[in-house]
Amino acid sequence: MAGSIAGEVFRVSTWGESHGKGIGVVVDGCPAGLELTEEDIQKYLDRRKPGQTKYSTPRKEGDEVQILSGIFEGKTTGTPISMVVMNTSQKSADYSEIAGYYRPGHADYTFDAKYGFRDYRGGGRSSGRETIGRVAAGAIAIKILEKLGVTITAYTKQIGEFSCRPDFSARENIEKSPLRMPDLEISAKTEEYLTQKMKEMDSVGGMIECIVSGMPAGIGEPVFDKLDAVLARNIVSIGAVKGVEIGAGFAVAGMTGSQNNDEFYINESGCVKKRTNFAGGILGGISDGDDIVLRAAIKPTPSIFQSQKTVTRQGEETCVQIKGRHDPVIMPRAVVVVEAMTALALVDELFLGMTSRMDKIMNYYGRK
Amino acid sequence: MAGSIAGEVFRVSTWGESHGKGIGVVVDGCPAGLELTEEDIQKYLDRRKPGQTKYSTPRKEGDEVQILSGIFEGKTTGTPISMVVMNTSQKSADYSEIAGYYRPGHADYTFDAKYGFRDYRGGGRSSGRETIGRVAAGAIAIKILEKLGVTITAYTKQIGEFSCRPDFSARENIEKSPLRMPDLEISAKTEEYLTQKMKEMDSVGGMIECIVSGMPAGIGEPVFDKLDAVLARNIVSIGAVKGVEIGAGFAVAGMTGSQNNDEFYINESGCVKKRTNFAGGILGGISDGDDIVLRAAIKPTPSIFQSQKTVTRQGEETCVQIKGRHDPVIMPRAVVVVEAMTALALVDELFLGMTSRMDKIMNYYGRK
Amino acid sequence: MAGSIAGEVFRVSTWGESHGKGIGVVVDGCPAGLELTEEDIQKYLDRRKPGQTKYSTPRKEGDEVQILSGIFEGKTTGTPISMVVMNTSQKSADYSEIAGYYRPGHADYTFDAKYGFRDYRGGGRSSGRETIGRVAAGAIAIKILEKLGVTITAYTKQIGEFSCRPDFSARENIEKSPLRMPDLEISAKTEEYLTQKMKEMDSVGGMIECIVSGMPAGIGEPVFDKLDAVLARNIVSIGAVKGVEIGAGFAVAGMTGSQNNDEFYINESGCVKKRTNFAGGILGGISDGDDIVLRAAIKPTPSIFQSQKTVTRQGEETCVQIKGRHDPVIMPRAVVVVEAMTALALVDELFLGMTSRMDKIMNYYGRK
Amino acid sequence: MAGSIAGEVFRVSTWGESHGKGIGVVVDGCPAGLELTEEDIQKYLDRRKPGQTKYSTPRKEGDEVQILSGIFEGKTTGTPISMVVMNTSQKSADYSEIAGYYRPGHADYTFDAKYGFRDYRGGGRSSGRETIGRVAAGAIAIKILEKLGVTITAYTKQIGEFSCRPDFSARENIEKSPLRMPDLEISAKTEEYLTQKMKEMDSVGGMIECIVSGMPAGIGEPVFDKLDAVLARNIVSIGAVKGVEIGAGFAVAGMTGSQNNDEFYINESGCVKKRTNFAGGILGGISDGDDIVLRAAIKPTPSIFQSQKTVTRQGEETCVQIKGRHDPVIMPRAVVVVEAMTALALVDELFLGMTSRMDKIMNYYGRK
Repeated sequence: MAGSIAGEVFRVSTWGESHGKGIGVVVDGCPAGLELTEEDIQKYLDRRKPGQTKYSTPRKEGDEVQILSGIFEGKTTGTPISMVVMNTSQKSADYSEIAGYYRPGHADYTFDAKYGFRDYRGGGRSSGRETIGRVAAGAIAIKILEKLGVTITAYTKQIGEFSCRPDFSARENIEKSPLRMPDLEISAKTEEYLTQKMKEMDSVGGMIECIVSGMPAGIGEPVFDKLDAVLARNIVSIGAVKGVEIGAGFAVAGMTGSQNNDEFYINESGCVKKRTNFAGGILGGISDGDDIVLRAAIKPTPSIFQSQKTVTRQGEETCVQIKGRHDPVIMPRAVVVVEAMTALALVDELFLGMTSRMDKIMNYYGRK
Repeated sequence: MAGSIAGEVFRVSTWGESHGKGIGVVVDGCPAGLELTEEDIQKYLDRRKPGQTKYSTPRKEGDEVQILSGIFEGKTTGTPISMVVMNTSQKSADYSEIAGYYRPGHADYTFDAKYGFRDYRGGGRSSGRETIGRVAAGAIAIKILEKLGVTITAYTKQIGEFSCRPDFSARENIEKSPLRMPDLEISAKTEEYLTQKMKEMDSVGGMIECIVSGMPAGIGEPVFDKLDAVLARNIVSIGAVKGVEIGAGFAVAGMTGSQNNDEFYINESGCVKKRTNFAGGILGGISDGDDIVLRAAIKPTPSIFQSQKTVTRQGEETCVQIKGRHDPVIMPRAVVVVEAMTALALVDELFLGMTSRMDKIMNYYGRK
Repeated sequence: MAGSIAGEVFRVSTWGESHGKGIGVVVDGCPAGLELTEEDIQKYLDRRKPGQTKYSTPRKEGDEVQILSGIFEGKTTGTPISMVVMNTSQKSADYSEIAGYYRPGHADYTFDAKYGFRDYRGGGRSSGRETIGRVAAGAIAIKILEKLGVTITAYTKQIGEFSCRPDFSARENIEKSPLRMPDLEISAKTEEYLTQKMKEMDSVGGMIECIVSGMPAGIGEPVFDKLDAVLARNIVSIGAVKGVEIGAGFAVAGMTGSQNNDEFYINESGCVKKRTNFAGGILGGISDGDDIVLRAAIKPTPSIFQSQKTVTRQGEETCVQIKGRHDPVIMPRAVVVVEAMTALALVDELFLGMTSRMDKIMNYYGRK
Repeated sequence: MAGSIAGEVFRVSTWGESHGKGIGVVVDGCPAGLELTEEDIQKYLDRRKPGQTKYSTPRKEGDEVQILSGIFEGKTTGTPISMVVMNTSQKSADYSEIAGYYRPGHADYTFDAKYGFRDYRGGGRSSGRETIGRVAAGAIAIKILEKLGVTITAYTKQIGEFSCRPDFSARENIEKSPLRMPDLEISAKTEEYLTQKMKEMDSVGGMIECIVSGMPAGIGEPVFDKLDAVLARNIVSIGAVKGVEIGAGFAVAGMTGSQNNDEFYINESGCVKKRTNFAGGILGGISDGDDIVLRAAIKPTPSIFQSQKTVTRQGEETCVQIKGRHDPVIMPRAVVVVEAMTALALVDELFLGMTSRMDKIMNYYGRK
């Protein structure tokens, strides 16, 4: 239970440190018969990888994935899929200095408190590179979801004071913005702000929104494994996330029941629908067939180039100036991680949901 | 995996419906040798139970717990602790009408979508009464935490527009407010607002803050079982919660790294401390020894007495007017549930954390 | 993880001590829509309960089950099913003496070694009464299996030197023998032997065989969750079991490949079948569509009335003479427990098996 | 839950097919601070690898392990340890023929029944090569156990009719026998028998015994996670195992209570001991401090070179003659796998056992 395995029936087991030999993941529980190639994985890793814009570290990482098992003749076999990205650009020498002190906002101190020592090179296991395994596994989950008619879109909704306006036209513009902010006018203004903050050797926080379309109603397990609870866990497990909300989210604190209750109606196809979606597509922890909407608060990159006060491992106060290559804003790359972690939760719950009804189980096994 | 079991080594398995014979929980993994009586459990159930103030349903429920197993001569034996609260006040007749339609904001529709039918009496398994099992199990977890020097305090931080000011003096005032709002001046104003909303046959949302003191540094597992991720899951699994945040939470979206990074220093005892606590006591998913601070957004009670538009199970639109006994505000009672779910997460992670270091394991087993 | 929860998606959580207030189980993951009454459970508990013949303790226990949750209008709702049997016949006074010493062959010493003390009344949690929860949960599993065309039959195959001959006609005779030995001629001889051993104040061991018919091919997960591995775990988890074997079992040690390999052929319906069944219905951990055959070795009841040497909790050697009511042979009652534990494993694997193939998942969710 | 992850807190996730790119395992939950090198792993893989004697396939496989993560400066960091053995000697061409039919005694048919198709090259995931991941993970577990004073020894106890006599002197002779049969006189006779069977193009079954010394008393969780139950699951999960027994095992069927009960006494150091060990070191599912003794029945290698009748995927009967390289006896190599799977179970239960007692938990966290 050292915490690097997620999921109940679609299970992913990630491994790897920033400056170790590589980063990878094993997916156990992928059904047989899914067409899967390294390209299917690579396209998500490419969206995540550094050096895509001037707002991410210029570190050259190919981040090329290899699939080592679980595929035969182009299809998944139902056995574990092992995927690896070898590290190529790490120079441990860069990091010898940080071995001795605790960077503010990082996990240096807490890893030492937990384990007695740590792999200090580039953050080790708490590096952002750890998310490679999540994204690789998430790419498979997304492919499964597509087969089931479910699509996931995440984008940068807010950076600093700048938020996308509600009337932006989302999907087609996301990749047009270097910040993955689909409101392109706001995106341009945010770039100016960001350039200023980079000059100040500072970093910025923000918010990511994720929208799931096509989710069938009836998915999610009551009580502890509510769909929103599992989503919340998955999202908050991403390093920089400090909060998560579903639907109206924290705004519900200021609402009344008559405002917040979504009215049901019957649409032209005779289906039960809601006029509004303050619920964010989940009622009682179970999907209601509407879009699932969640948002994640992302803290500013803790690695900033300003001088900061901190302490050494030996218990002395000191001043540090972090060097190296660090993103001043991680939302554009974290968007892909949010999609991946959302997909992992959804696939797991969709699979678990197959045993909810005796009649459907009997039907599955050819009984009536 | 129908979702009513939580925890990895301190595991709770809850059961029961609002209008079934009873509600209960089995705790598997409680260590042997903890003094435990029914009174230890009852005092938390009493804080949770209805009818304590005019802001909660006047339903008369004794909610008396019986411990059926796992205790011998006043102490836990290490075997499962089964606790039951029999339902006494349920009149199913009250609910026959709601069988046919879907209440807005409730899980009626999604339960039907998932299972094909539902126990419609008082919400069945999705009733707030389901939290009795959580609170009973949480009471044991809280007792374990106390032995380890960890205390948990939750309170109502916000209702509607009204928020406790940061300088309130917290713990001693919480129980003085019928809303469990320790800023008593604000609490009084909120009561007026609430009275008004009750007249309007409406309900209100709010926010609960939970503070954990005394948590040792080094607890929490990296990656998927980060301490904040497990807390987030547990908190969002509470029925009405639509968001959770840790430390600075959603405010990080508007912050810069230089603002948000907590500076480390060495206190007079030579310990590593942080000058601020934007991290909320968790760095990299591992406790840093500081107070853990989390907040949960609670939606307004969906049961309101105004007429609402909705649909029937037969797919026809209709108007409904909910009757019965419903809290116009659930924060005062939900505070206890937030404490319980927090405690369950902390105990589980504290227990898992015992296997993090080889030297400590060897010491435990008398090896050197 | 105190060990009283079993299963991955059809999960059972048992609780209760021999002389506590009751014994029970919570089943989480039972699908909705299964007709279920207390009688469905009671008939299995009645087969398990003491006092049915002169070979089991004459203790009067009604062992009447109550279902406290998870059923509505005669059907399972998909939410946890809590079942309780209250203890009625326990007189703790009987057991005060055994508090001070360790009964040979019992778990008295190991419970003390693990927990520091124990509920010594009648074995506490390690009593045979603990199996009530298993049998109650197993009764639900058996009912699910029946819906899927799977039947389970266990019987006493051996007691001491006496074994059923291979050509007995099984099912119809099992309940005709007080020992649940369907070879009635052998059963009669065994009764004589048993009567003799009872006079000698001794107990006897034996073997139970369990046969599963109707299991579809393709169930079981490769590697660690092989169908036989999960069955083995479940069977060995029954208190008195000291060994388990599948198909030819231990006889394979003396066989050659040419003897042990089951030849495949095509039957008249065009299906793949095996001419023999040394595999016991499982190949590579996955069911092959043939009968699943397993056997469990059951040790003699450790409670015997002869004087035995042992030690006290204080570390002194002593002689003990166990009193009370104890079965001289437990196979006839354990047969029901073996069926239950087999059923729990099968249901769990059948449910897990629903996510093995992408095409079937798409079909389940109405995609093509 | 596709079954390739084992353990609760010390968790291993294996992957890889016989003729894929490689075989590997991720260990999540290894404590920090254990010295670990590739040599520590390699020595167990070398004992397992083919080509060591004339009784195993002459296939040239280096089976060289690489550790890709989780180690820093020679010690485990507490984060996942990823280990890989790349496949080097596989020629898929060898296997094109077997794609079309089902080998008797193999999992070909059941994989097809489960997944709809299979990786037919060399058995794919059901190949004996899959055990490389188990042995690599087991090597770490064995190293942890050594630190805790626990040692594991397995050896070939029986092949065909030939069994080691009880008075052999075990450990020092095991590696002197090419069959890992420490009774060297019997080993020599067995070699003759085996040579004869190889001439007959046949294979042989056998039995492995495994002895655990130094296990502290009090380990194992009652009810479903009994130490013997978890061991049974782990052992039966090894491909060729058809039965497992603990202590007296199946012999208990013919014993009486007075024979089978192990008498307790106090040894010269004042410790509770048993005069005999029919219990095999486990009472009530909890270790009693004595040697743990278990035996596994191993079926004859199903790949034999004689002509065998079987069926094709298209449903036609056929005759097949298996070619290639196959061990006529797998016990000598399986011994290492039995040790590994035993070690994995023990470490997991030792770690889980750390939360059994409140006083020890308080002590761990520095409370009194």
